[in-house]
Amino acid sequence: MKETHKKLVSGIQEFFKEASHRKAVLGLSGGLDSAVTLKLVADALGSENVGAVLMPENGVTRSENVLHAKGLCQFLRTEYYYQPINSFLIDYASLPWKQNEIAVMNTKARVRATILYNYANTKQALVVGTSNKSELMLGYGTKYGDLAADLLPLGELFKTEVKELAEYMELPKEIVEKAPSAELYSGQTDEQDLGATYKELDIVLRKRDLGEDALIEKGMNPALIRSVFKRIKTNAHKLSTPPIIPAS
Amino acid sequence: MKETHKKLVSGIQEFFKEASHRKAVLGLSGGLDSAVTLKLVADALGSENVGAVLMPENGVTRSENVLHAKGLCQFLRTEYYYQPINSFLIDYASLPWKQNEIAVMNTKARVRATILYNYANTKQALVVGTSNKSELMLGYGTKYGDLAADLLPLGELFKTEVKELAEYMELPKEIVEKAPSAELYSGQTDEQDLGATYKELDIVLRKRDLGEDALIEKGMNPALIRSVFKRIKTNAHKLSTPPIIPAS
Repeated sequence: MKETHKKLVSGIQEFFKEASHRKAVLGLSGGLDSAVTLKLVADALGSENVGAVLMPENGVTRSENVLHAKGLCQFLRTEYYYQPINSFLIDYASLPWKQNEIAVMNTKARVRATILYNYANTKQALVVGTSNKSELMLGYGTKYGDLAADLLPLGELFKTEVKELAEYMELPKEIVEKAPSAELYSGQTDEQDLGATYKELDIVLRKRDLGEDALIEKGMNPALIRSVFKRIKTNAHKLSTPPIIPAS
Repeated sequence: MKETHKKLVSGIQEFFKEASHRKAVLGLSGGLDSAVTLKLVADALGSENVGAVLMPENGVTRSENVLHAKGLCQFLRTEYYYQPINSFLIDYASLPWKQNEIAVMNTKARVRATILYNYANTKQALVVGTSNKSELMLGYGTKYGDLAADLLPLGELFKTEVKELAEYMELPKEIVEKAPSAELYSGQTDEQDLGATYKELDIVLRKRDLGEDALIEKGMNPALIRSVFKRIKTNAHKLSTPPIIPAS
């Protein structure tokens, strides 16, 4: 992981130089991915050039996550902003249609993205996304929500590798060990949503190129394989640019 | 334009079939692009499958635009929703940083995108973007705001062609003839923002592949050419997927 850390730090530096920007902003949840991303960006740009925004939803976000996020900022000497999103969500409840559960959850992620880009536009910063390769491949994220970013430093690391990198960088144990959660509703965990652990999922994702049938023939759990391949196919649109309809 | 209309309508039908969706939603401003898009989508999917959302900002959006948008929906027999965005913007004014003008404007576009995706998630609809080729090439739009969409039916038509198509489709004259405006602040017009008319801009954009220097040598206005090429370069990131930092 020493090499990976070095490579990512210099890659981030190069990206910002190329884009003529010095400052970065990211949403810090208290979870693993955003903690690793914050540390990488602080190592690359200097902690004085990184803003972390804590955007809990009171009543849904567990209070220990807020504490862990604040603690990390103090440890890394990063400036942080605390902005609960509850009041931002109120208007969406009285839209002229009755929003369903999926809309409610995704709106939270999109409000957070809008807040981050508000900071970015104001301070001429780039928005650093925190999605890892497992999430990106599975499309486990909100289109134009948490998937909205100007760069993705963890985009080549599977979730299990992000954890290894966190251990290498000596991030606080309470962050490294906690169960991954998008916290879009109370008690949510990624692995329950996805129907498997990231360890199981990453094994499938690494071998994805062999194809669905070959993996099942090799004796892997058919239900898991089918569900992973279905997710990949259904969610591919989330990471592509909007397709243009041909006019001629 | 008869061929173009036919091609776009069948392209939209094919896209929705491929994506296994029947319903569409779009933001209707009362301007040209969204009117043309609405008509195309209604022709393709049937007006009963299209929701138009009017999201004026009271005090900024001119009231005639709201009237034109409503009139068009009545004419096309499209269901429409009226949802001013003013109250959605209030919280952003008290963020823990003092937002600048750019942030204020872009936040409006991002709030509108969040509302459209709330509808889309609720009704299992696709969000139809209204950007045309001139805007896309120039990057004249808000990243993750009005540029956020699931498909772009006008993406291959220059602004001057959109107007021709509108005339062919016999859209109301008051919509076809009005000055293009993003209406992110009072009195804004695209052509003032861009420093040239779309007619002038489209001539440059069509010849873009010849390169900056060649176009100036051919006797085109150097200031215009420089400004167009600068916009293209600076804004290219707005339409690409977030770049991934290499880890190895």
